[in-house]
Amino acid sequence: MTGKFVRADGRDIDQLREVTITREWSAHAEGSALIEFGATKVLCTASVESDVPRWLRGQGRGWVTAEYAMLPRATNTRNARESIKGKVGGRTHEISRLIGRSLRAVVDLESLGENMITLDCDVLQADGGTRTAAVTGAFVALADAIEWARGEGRIRKRAEVLRDSVAAISVGVLPNGTAVLDLPYGEDSTAGTDMNVVATGSGDFVEVQGTAEGAPFNRNQLNELLDLSLIGCGRLAELQRMALAQ
Amino acid sequence: MTGKFVRADGRDIDQLREVTITREWSAHAEGSALIEFGATKVLCTASVESDVPRWLRGQGRGWVTAEYAMLPRATNTRNARESIKGKVGGRTHEISRLIGRSLRAVVDLESLGENMITLDCDVLQADGGTRTAAVTGAFVALADAIEWARGEGRIRKRAEVLRDSVAAISVGVLPNGTAVLDLPYGEDSTAGTDMNVVATGSGDFVEVQGTAEGAPFNRNQLNELLDLSLIGCGRLAELQRMALAQ
Amino acid sequence: MTGKFVRADGRDIDQLREVTITREWSAHAEGSALIEFGATKVLCTASVESDVPRWLRGQGRGWVTAEYAMLPRATNTRNARESIKGKVGGRTHEISRLIGRSLRAVVDLESLGENMITLDCDVLQADGGTRTAAVTGAFVALADAIEWARGEGRIRKRAEVLRDSVAAISVGVLPNGTAVLDLPYGEDSTAGTDMNVVATGSGDFVEVQGTAEGAPFNRNQLNELLDLSLIGCGRLAELQRMALAQ
Amino acid sequence: MTGKFVRADGRDIDQLREVTITREWSAHAEGSALIEFGATKVLCTASVESDVPRWLRGQGRGWVTAEYAMLPRATNTRNARESIKGKVGGRTHEISRLIGRSLRAVVDLESLGENMITLDCDVLQADGGTRTAAVTGAFVALADAIEWARGEGRIRKRAEVLRDSVAAISVGVLPNGTAVLDLPYGEDSTAGTDMNVVATGSGDFVEVQGTAEGAPFNRNQLNELLDLSLIGCGRLAELQRMALAQ
Amino acid sequence: MTGKFVRADGRDIDQLREVTITREWSAHAEGSALIEFGATKVLCTASVESDVPRWLRGQGRGWVTAEYAMLPRATNTRNARESIKGKVGGRTHEISRLIGRSLRAVVDLESLGENMITLDCDVLQADGGTRTAAVTGAFVALADAIEWARGEGRIRKRAEVLRDSVAAISVGVLPNGTAVLDLPYGEDSTAGTDMNVVATGSGDFVEVQGTAEGAPFNRNQLNELLDLSLIGCGRLAELQRMALAQ
Amino acid sequence: MTGKFVRADGRDIDQLREVTITREWSAHAEGSALIEFGATKVLCTASVESDVPRWLRGQGRGWVTAEYAMLPRATNTRNARESIKGKVGGRTHEISRLIGRSLRAVVDLESLGENMITLDCDVLQADGGTRTAAVTGAFVALADAIEWARGEGRIRKRAEVLRDSVAAISVGVLPNGTAVLDLPYGEDSTAGTDMNVVATGSGDFVEVQGTAEGAPFNRNQLNELLDLSLIGCGRLAELQRMALAQ
Repeated sequence: MTGKFVRADGRDIDQLREVTITREWSAHAEGSALIEFGATKVLCTASVESDVPRWLRGQGRGWVTAEYAMLPRATNTRNARESIKGKVGGRTHEISRLIGRSLRAVVDLESLGENMITLDCDVLQADGGTRTAAVTGAFVALADAIEWARGEGRIRKRAEVLRDSVAAISVGVLPNGTAVLDLPYGEDSTAGTDMNVVATGSGDFVEVQGTAEGAPFNRNQLNELLDLSLIGCGRLAELQRMALAQ
Repeated sequence: MTGKFVRADGRDIDQLREVTITREWSAHAEGSALIEFGATKVLCTASVESDVPRWLRGQGRGWVTAEYAMLPRATNTRNARESIKGKVGGRTHEISRLIGRSLRAVVDLESLGENMITLDCDVLQADGGTRTAAVTGAFVALADAIEWARGEGRIRKRAEVLRDSVAAISVGVLPNGTAVLDLPYGEDSTAGTDMNVVATGSGDFVEVQGTAEGAPFNRNQLNELLDLSLIGCGRLAELQRMALAQ
Repeated sequence: MTGKFVRADGRDIDQLREVTITREWSAHAEGSALIEFGATKVLCTASVESDVPRWLRGQGRGWVTAEYAMLPRATNTRNARESIKGKVGGRTHEISRLIGRSLRAVVDLESLGENMITLDCDVLQADGGTRTAAVTGAFVALADAIEWARGEGRIRKRAEVLRDSVAAISVGVLPNGTAVLDLPYGEDSTAGTDMNVVATGSGDFVEVQGTAEGAPFNRNQLNELLDLSLIGCGRLAELQRMALAQ
Repeated sequence: MTGKFVRADGRDIDQLREVTITREWSAHAEGSALIEFGATKVLCTASVESDVPRWLRGQGRGWVTAEYAMLPRATNTRNARESIKGKVGGRTHEISRLIGRSLRAVVDLESLGENMITLDCDVLQADGGTRTAAVTGAFVALADAIEWARGEGRIRKRAEVLRDSVAAISVGVLPNGTAVLDLPYGEDSTAGTDMNVVATGSGDFVEVQGTAEGAPFNRNQLNELLDLSLIGCGRLAELQRMALAQ
Repeated sequence: MTGKFVRADGRDIDQLREVTITREWSAHAEGSALIEFGATKVLCTASVESDVPRWLRGQGRGWVTAEYAMLPRATNTRNARESIKGKVGGRTHEISRLIGRSLRAVVDLESLGENMITLDCDVLQADGGTRTAAVTGAFVALADAIEWARGEGRIRKRAEVLRDSVAAISVGVLPNGTAVLDLPYGEDSTAGTDMNVVATGSGDFVEVQGTAEGAPFNRNQLNELLDLSLIGCGRLAELQRMALAQ
Repeated sequence: MTGKFVRADGRDIDQLREVTITREWSAHAEGSALIEFGATKVLCTASVESDVPRWLRGQGRGWVTAEYAMLPRATNTRNARESIKGKVGGRTHEISRLIGRSLRAVVDLESLGENMITLDCDVLQADGGTRTAAVTGAFVALADAIEWARGEGRIRKRAEVLRDSVAAISVGVLPNGTAVLDLPYGEDSTAGTDMNVVATGSGDFVEVQGTAEGAPFNRNQLNELLDLSLIGCGRLAELQRMALAQ
């Protein structure tokens, strides 16, 4: 290839799609954010309860958990509702667990006290990267919910509950071998390797999940993808800070 | 009571909340509308499939069905997801069936041909009247989906698939005995009688569902409520026409 | 139409089918009634427990709830059991909720004390009007169960638990436009409008559920149906009184 | 023990409770019988379908199957519905399978042709012996359904579909060591050994299911129980013949 | 038949397959045994918990229960997992209940104290007789678990928890009319009558479950099968004693 | 730390536990292997069916899928069966999907033809690393099943179905900061970062799944873990070759 590679949507290989974070979208939730990565739209709400799961009671510590789901017509063709199928699919489970783990990685559960915060991440429209948008938006909703709980006196005034911020992004290798950042559905569905990286605001890894969809990948490709992911997560951390500063 | 009764939100007894219909909200669905009745927000998408349920195959007729659901934090306190509970609750079933029946009342299933249209009505935020907003918004999404199918040649050019429009509104009796139109959650939760009425654009009834939550109601009260409901449905039909005319 | 309209089974338009109420059908239940509306047979049992649902505990009030179901071969062709399908259908849910609400409308839950009464309404044979027979029979079983509980000292001697009686009937519009009372399956399956009305012994409404199966209905038709329904509910209230007086 | 042992209900040790078989109880089913063993009442209906389970298709043979269930208040205290629990319990499964196997033991599935007959055995009231009443009543319903199918031309005129009759009875050992026939709930709940025997009209065994509830039983006790069971099944075969001869 | 009948695997009619009991197979369970009846392999583990089911609490008595299951490819063709189907089949339920009842027949629940022992019997490879191998192996795991609990001081030192041993075997009638002991799959699938017998070490019956798969069986055949079963159970009791003596 | 760090079980940081692969463990499956990583024992069976999932029919390509499960007492304390809970947990789903993807990464689905191979990986005993043992053992079972299918003529003689071998291993960071290979439960439960790596025989990555259980990890730690994982996967590939060569 001679000349700079141009992606279908005109972005550079290390460029995010347009990211929008609408804080306090919900009139009811203790924290909320509607996050958009291009055409991907995820509504994240944080619900605070003064109770923790049974296995955690009486230990003075809190818990943060997440549930991810897609509206049936968030995608190009309609998917049957999991409530009607009567069971939650493997993909849904996997992503819900990923979001919960990612958030807990930056939360000091002792400082949170015996509070439980549930993050609901509902994909209203999907165009690739829904799980990474969910992690990124859920962090904003979580931060607001923690401040709400502090205001209510449920968390001690000076407790440093959040040790860092956390965000996530997808990276992948296109069929022509180019590694790119933040793949929309069109790129994602043809990518040979697909990786989701969750990183803190200070640039450390929380999760690295890389999968060879077609041919296996080597160490060099892995390094290239990790580099890109840290660029993306760094930029998202900045956008989160800006949103929370408003 | 002397003097005009004033509702908590300042509306007249026969006045709707502010209604907003955002057509073509979804990038993927064949028809869609985000409908707002005050703080109640319902996303309605219409999905067209070239197949009908098994029991209808080979009869040259189509089908219209609906699924209603609420996001877990659409309400003031979080509700467990039905997908996780593994079963759909009675209320959800009831409302889904109501929406489907209401839409089919104005659709000529023969003219629709062997197409199946599924209306997904997902409540993003709830403040009373979610089922009536869903019926009203779903009609707009349905109308767009039918035109899309016509454009694709799946429905005959001049087939009159929609015989009329359809909209729905709630009416109820406040504790002081006043009958009012379009109850937000605050009024709904204290109302003695609660009624949902579905009516066509030409003012006929499709569904009348009245329930005495506290004391039974008499014939006069029933008539008063029916009068109010027709005022509301008439106004909604006008708003639907305006939205579809844009 | 000239001359009096004759229904398929020879009844007048405002005439009930033969109604039989067999009290104390069950050797085990605290109250029970086998009710027949023509060929429709519903076994209603009332079970008293000295416990209330969790959300009601410690408030000194009781609860009345109902579960409706059909034997698989109650109908003309066999229906799969809901226990085997592993889920309760929308129609079953809807009717169970209707019966529970209807009964609670005439019960003073404070006077009931911390007792819970469950009405099981199992359709042994179906020929239209199963939900209305269920409401009507369940009231008789409920009245007996309340007297049993009073006899056991679980309810105070002079507590007026039942404020009124409650009964239900179906009305509908036949294809020829005639409004009729108490439709058997043959009439019900062809009726244009179908309405179920629940009313108290003193003639007030508890529920009004009208549905246009085909063409929407206008105000005059609605009024005609409501008139018929009150005639039917009045006659049923009389039969309930006679059954309970024996 | 000196003198003759007298059972709580006055019966001899080898005496059945009063048995009543009401044929053609159902207006809809192709065959039906309400069978009563004392206070135990089981409604048995037979449904004929012109289709067989997938694994049997195209072999020219039919199938007979059964489903057993109890109404929630058939017993002294209310049991939760299996449809609401969302799963069928082990006991229900076990008995349904027993009934199906017992009936198939006397049916020539080749002569039945590609017809499937489902026996629904619903216990309306329980006082011990529900499974044995179910087998006995289901045979009568099955015989009627086979004659119905013959009349409809679905079974060849002279095909001998039923090779024999089949009936079932319970036997058990009371705490005082006495072996008795046809135990009502009061005896059954205290019996040391509990056995259900299914036998053909000609006196051969189809099923023998004996269980030591308390102490194990020896060969002599087993023989005594088998003797009693054959007396009971013989008497039931006679009652079936009489019912079917009417 | 002249000359001695020879079975497909060369055994005598009253001869068991090779039986192997590997005690303490599991590194984690409080008691365990891998039992083999020829090619049938069942892993039995006993888990001790210091809690009893709710309905038994505070009575000073313990409980013994069992769960039976098959690996999907334990059999010749693969069976779908019950966890994925979302429900436990009737056969699984039936066998689990049989194992539990059989073990409880020789356990003094008072002496066990408020301990609950769960026997998991997982079939790793199936070749007929899995339920009888499960009962026989589970007894060995149970005996070890009881000694473990005694060592931990959870059971009184001299409490005689086990009143006897218990084992199980299958017997059946081959198509040629010969009654045989311990049927592998090949014989079982063609046997006319199939019986499973559970007996104590002292030779009394705990369960007798005989089923006519084809033609009904008479009293003589039944007696022949019972004779064989007692020979088999006697031999198994000996093998259990030897395994536990090591 | 001065001197070489010694692990609890005496291994070097880059040393596998003792690995045993018992090929052809099952008498029924088309391919099977019992694999042991120390005390972790996983039974892997491969089942070949001449049918593919519906969405793949008629394309001339095959499919490979996997199901992972644990026996209830594979672990130190008993876990409830997923079949009895009625749903498959998120962890089970996640691992099943991982195994399936890992195997498909080295299979040429075109060469496989319209065959479906299901790998069942059942954990008989768990001591950390069950998913990595499952991937490694499943590959051996898969290889045997493919040769079986070739022998049966279901796969073309010279079709190169397997493009490479595939194996998996866990790596992690101990609380003292040391990165180690192949963690047993004792190390795994205290590790700060936990990573599972799936790699081909030629040393490329198929999956990289790293999770910060406590503190996030940096790029250096990630590299150290990746180095270790490739050592482990290389050694496992050798053991697979040896097993398959016997």
